Amino acid sequence: MSFRLLCKVCGKNYSLKTNHWRCVSCNRPLNLVTELPRCDQFDQLVEKNERGIWRYKRLIPFSEESVSLGEGNTPVVEMKDEGAKLKLEYFSPTGSFKDRGAAVSVSRAKCIGVRSIVEDSSGNAGIAAAAYAARASIRARIYVPKDAPLAKRVMIRACGADVVECESRKDASARAVGELKENELYIGHTWDPFYIEGMKTVAFELFESKCIPDAVMIPVASGTLFLGLFKGFLELNELGFLDKIPKFYAVQGESCAPLYEAMYGPIRAIRGSALADGLRIDAPPRKEEILNAIRKTSGEVLTVNDDEIIGALKDLYKKGIIVEPTSATAYAAFKRGKDLKNENVLIPMTGTGIKTVDKISKLFIF
Amino acid sequence: MSFRLLCKVCGKNYSLKTNHWRCVSCNRPLNLVTELPRCDQFDQLVEKNERGIWRYKRLIPFSEESVSLGEGNTPVVEMKDEGAKLKLEYFSPTGSFKDRGAAVSVSRAKCIGVRSIVEDSSGNAGIAAAAYAARASIRARIYVPKDAPLAKRVMIRACGADVVECESRKDASARAVGELKENELYIGHTWDPFYIEGMKTVAFELFESKCIPDAVMIPVASGTLFLGLFKGFLELNELGFLDKIPKFYAVQGESCAPLYEAMYGPIRAIRGSALADGLRIDAPPRKEEILNAIRKTSGEVLTVNDDEIIGALKDLYKKGIIVEPTSATAYAAFKRGKDLKNENVLIPMTGTGIKTVDKISKLFIF
Repeated sequence: MSFRLLCKVCGKNYSLKTNHWRCVSCNRPLNLVTELPRCDQFDQLVEKNERGIWRYKRLIPFSEESVSLGEGNTPVVEMKDEGAKLKLEYFSPTGSFKDRGAAVSVSRAKCIGVRSIVEDSSGNAGIAAAAYAARASIRARIYVPKDAPLAKRVMIRACGADVVECESRKDASARAVGELKENELYIGHTWDPFYIEGMKTVAFELFESKCIPDAVMIPVASGTLFLGLFKGFLELNELGFLDKIPKFYAVQGESCAPLYEAMYGPIRAIRGSALADGLRIDAPPRKEEILNAIRKTSGEVLTVNDDEIIGALKDLYKKGIIVEPTSATAYAAFKRGKDLKNENVLIPMTGTGIKTVDKISKLFIF
Repeated sequence: MSFRLLCKVCGKNYSLKTNHWRCVSCNRPLNLVTELPRCDQFDQLVEKNERGIWRYKRLIPFSEESVSLGEGNTPVVEMKDEGAKLKLEYFSPTGSFKDRGAAVSVSRAKCIGVRSIVEDSSGNAGIAAAAYAARASIRARIYVPKDAPLAKRVMIRACGADVVECESRKDASARAVGELKENELYIGHTWDPFYIEGMKTVAFELFESKCIPDAVMIPVASGTLFLGLFKGFLELNELGFLDKIPKFYAVQGESCAPLYEAMYGPIRAIRGSALADGLRIDAPPRKEEILNAIRKTSGEVLTVNDDEIIGALKDLYKKGIIVEPTSATAYAAFKRGKDLKNENVLIPMTGTGIKTVDKISKLFIF
């Protein structure tokens, strides 16, 4: 196996150990390309004594000194009445799918000798970065919008990271890179190509458990899970084990839907989607890559509003699925999409509802 | 495989479908006895296409219509500097080990046609019961002490269960059985023998992953995990696959330590353990069974105070292990126990810290 790091837009190559977080020539995000081996069975690439994402360590760069908190290997639960399968990504060290990405980004930081990392996040990615940095004995500074849920801010601090509260999500991104010091590594998940390497393990898990769906529906902000899952399926396809890539549906809140607008033009009659607080990135760095995945798989972008998110949340809790509002967006879109009812649809449940108890409390009117 | 339900004290037998929650003759808890088959390999008893606790469904009663939210199959993470292994039970549907027990108790309720269950809990067992009842479309009423953490009360309600707030943990237990109606089933985890059947799967997971420790250290209130793990090891021993049962160490908070007092007499110089809010059961129904497990394995009862719990919590968070204070009690006892440093000790991390963010926030002084 070999890995190359480059900017796919201008073609410039980078060392895997670079501390550049974007292309110095054209400011685009960098991409990691995996040169895959020939093999007869996927089994031959699997580390059978490992579990979770490191089962696939031969397909992940910088896995020789992996930093692990038990991430990955999440269960799939079927919602029989509705026909959807849910992959429960809240079975994880810090309660969200971000742990997969943080595990790889922080493993790389450790392997290249970094002592201090910086991340910006609306919350979940911040806790994940803080926890993995703690596990690796690396310092962490996390920039969050000041209205990030209390539980998220508290947990980041409890893991020993510094929290910088910012005016907005956009401001957090700007300050994270603007205040970066020379000896620090920016592992911002919206940019870091290594983060996506952690996410692609979801595809390998689905493949190993013989659970490849016809379509996936995913809440998308910066698109790390979306692109990771797509990359995982592409690698399985290139290896010769998967004939058809599932359709990729991206779900966004109405109030911040840059992908929808890029595909179909401005949204009319917005009723608002304040509940999707994890999806507030109006200019995702990898927007073109996300749109490409949607087009290539004949997918779509769907938007949902707060009423739909509340309805989906209530449905999920009434089945014992305890998720945060952002997680419920994709389920809300699925419920509305009559065309999907005959397809085998997989929806990742991205984060636990326990972190957003203040919101849940208000929504259910206790 | 066959199962028998009886009172081990007076010998009275019960139908597996009984709605008696304790022995009608002597008021003691009932016990489930498994008649184990002869087999050459544990593999032959494992349902290889299943994951989590239902992988061991042949060893669990009422598993034909299992109610699942993805429980079990939790990772083990090593704390290299300290020498302990942590089994992360917060990788679970509602964030605690109670999900294993609730899955089996509610599966039984569903199999015998019950429409409404009742549970009493300081919080975690209540969320688990509410979530599994929701998944099974069974009504649930949960009695909790009024000072149970907000997140726990909110989540129980969000899953559609009725919450009855009581003066104390003891009052919650008394009212749960006192207000029981004829067509309801009491699945109180402190009494229900089927709950323990879910917990024993932890032992099977450790066995399958070749991770049998020399000793286990477990926070104990009613002792469901303690007794379940013990039962699992005993079954492995009886089947001929395990020669030696690990030592069983029970850990309690100083302020409520009925096991310690039964073994060694009254505690002197109590400094308090208010943080161990999940361990406040002063008369655990299965006290004699727990003491028996400790004595048979040459184990001990250890108590910890709030200062020690805070120290352990801070250590754990600084390694990225996000647990609630009750979970940290066993780690606190381990840290103090110099004699254990050369043993291979396994400590279950019983519940996520995200549920107790209000407490964590105060402890870390933000």
